[in-house]
Amino acid sequence: MASSNAFGWAATDASGHLSPFHFTRRENEADDVTLKILYCGVCHSDLHTVKNDWGFTTYPVVPGHEIAGIVTKVGSNVTKFKEGDRVGVGVIVDSCKECESCQQDLESYCPKPVFTYNAPYKGARTQGGYSNFVVVHQRYVLQFPNNLPLDAGAPLLCAGITVYSPMKYYGMTEPGKHLGVAGLGGLGHVAIKFGKAFGLKVTVISSSPSKESEAIDVLGADSFLLSSDPEQMKAATGTMDYIIDTISAVHSLVSLLGLLKLNGKLVTVGLPSKPLQLPIFPLVLGRKLIGGSNFGGLKETQEMLDFCGKHNIAANIELIKMDEINTAMERLSKADVKYRFVIDVANSLSSTSNI
Amino acid sequence: MASSNAFGWAATDASGHLSPFHFTRRENEADDVTLKILYCGVCHSDLHTVKNDWGFTTYPVVPGHEIAGIVTKVGSNVTKFKEGDRVGVGVIVDSCKECESCQQDLESYCPKPVFTYNAPYKGARTQGGYSNFVVVHQRYVLQFPNNLPLDAGAPLLCAGITVYSPMKYYGMTEPGKHLGVAGLGGLGHVAIKFGKAFGLKVTVISSSPSKESEAIDVLGADSFLLSSDPEQMKAATGTMDYIIDTISAVHSLVSLLGLLKLNGKLVTVGLPSKPLQLPIFPLVLGRKLIGGSNFGGLKETQEMLDFCGKHNIAANIELIKMDEINTAMERLSKADVKYRFVIDVANSLSSTSNI
Repeated sequence: MASSNAFGWAATDASGHLSPFHFTRRENEADDVTLKILYCGVCHSDLHTVKNDWGFTTYPVVPGHEIAGIVTKVGSNVTKFKEGDRVGVGVIVDSCKECESCQQDLESYCPKPVFTYNAPYKGARTQGGYSNFVVVHQRYVLQFPNNLPLDAGAPLLCAGITVYSPMKYYGMTEPGKHLGVAGLGGLGHVAIKFGKAFGLKVTVISSSPSKESEAIDVLGADSFLLSSDPEQMKAATGTMDYIIDTISAVHSLVSLLGLLKLNGKLVTVGLPSKPLQLPIFPLVLGRKLIGGSNFGGLKETQEMLDFCGKHNIAANIELIKMDEINTAMERLSKADVKYRFVIDVANSLSSTSNI
Repeated sequence: MASSNAFGWAATDASGHLSPFHFTRRENEADDVTLKILYCGVCHSDLHTVKNDWGFTTYPVVPGHEIAGIVTKVGSNVTKFKEGDRVGVGVIVDSCKECESCQQDLESYCPKPVFTYNAPYKGARTQGGYSNFVVVHQRYVLQFPNNLPLDAGAPLLCAGITVYSPMKYYGMTEPGKHLGVAGLGGLGHVAIKFGKAFGLKVTVISSSPSKESEAIDVLGADSFLLSSDPEQMKAATGTMDYIIDTISAVHSLVSLLGLLKLNGKLVTVGLPSKPLQLPIFPLVLGRKLIGGSNFGGLKETQEMLDFCGKHNIAANIELIKMDEINTAMERLSKADVKYRFVIDVANSLSSTSNI
């Protein structure tokens, strides 16, 4: 196969500006699935990576780990997929397959994961889904249920599983219980939908009064709690069983913990860059817990997609063209998106190939 | 009954100095058990209270909520106890009995608990176990197993249940798992014994090298980790399934979290007066949790005493006379005790009654 067989948009320095980029994908091998990329979600991690916010970006980097597309080739060992299948690829494209985590279908916690982009792999570096195709080991490919749209379904592969996995692991799924969703972005808006599908009462906790009608009328939350209003917060003391905290900025845990009942659980999936202040008294006196969770393993991700198919859950997206990505990144940095940008890759990548 | 029917030692101001004190106990009513106090453990809470560290002490106050003694009278509704029974009283002597917590045998989380001392109750104030007798509603009285000594068993009523309850609630009892016990005081030393009884590997985590031989040779821990030694801490990274954190001083959570494996659980039962720094990355990347827990409900406390009887678990104590209490409090403030002071109340209270 010729070099530069693949094409996408990459950032080449810490400005984070993305532009067309030719590169080489590896050949399809016996265990591999090749997919034509139709859609790719724009995750906040993409933005952090192109800006080198975490300090380990190697340029050029093609971001994108919410990939949805169509299988175009399968290797000789591949039995779960065939040409034409509607599939997805999420945060990782490989792992060691031998450690305790991998053997328990928790590849997301393998100490040697291969991230979908910006990772060394097989003598080269991985490049993500802002591109025309990708070659992935079958274990790391997900089957889309028939009724799940590929565009609005793509964000489930990172944002979706990141909130679904802790809800399952920490037992936040008992019908009739009260879930608070702190922060209403890419993760939070999907958490509302899972909460409702599990039969929970869902309250969105946000400091933006403008989000109230969206949360309730558009996304289906039962109620809205304005975290900047001390009266509302006081009235809501001790009313929630669970909170999913999707806030990435440094924020107050004590006010969220106060909302929990006895035995309440707060799960944090955001990644604030600095430690938060943890008051111990409310934990002890209310037997409350704070748990963390990363994205899920492949088996659970498939389970989540099937659950979404059954319950008609997908992300609320703004579909953009490839050449709108830099504007989209700018808007994402201001949280100005309802609620996930998804790139219409196949329909817009070719038109920009000569830029 | 005459006034001043009871006699004990009380603090009368924030100096915390204790001295003989005559006061009145309420009459034994239909649901009450009266017990002659034989022994009373000296809990760190007693020290905080006599010094008014928490700001809500009303003087004079007779401390003591690790009370062991013999039943001398029972009310007409009392069926579980009879005269001569060996019994105990712990942190609370009453609660509302109607709330969700009380109805689930979690009286320890009732919003209206009546603490064993320093609490308003039935028109007077409760006074604790540094005294000759006490009258308690039968629900809040515990039966001592026959083989459990009353002196070394008394501290189980607070220190014991405070570590037993979270081990049960958070599922830290799977045989073969590895438990870290952070801090080796009244709580920590009992946590070692529970850990071994549950079939766990137990490592004591302490900043005092002098505690190594004690932890292993005297208390039965399997190993010792010196938290002030970066090399040892590094080598122990990711080796523990559970940690019970009994440290009351402000301390580093990040170093303890680093010791935990994937899905590891850290339970904090100490009560640092200031918030701790909580780094979110280790929680998220290792799906770890931090949980709090208070003392347990009465049903669980009885279960714990029965468990201690079966496994011959009691506290390691220094038995003191009543008039040694002020020296003992001084030593307790310096953590100079192995590992719990217990007052030999019945044998030493009378001799000091004329001081």
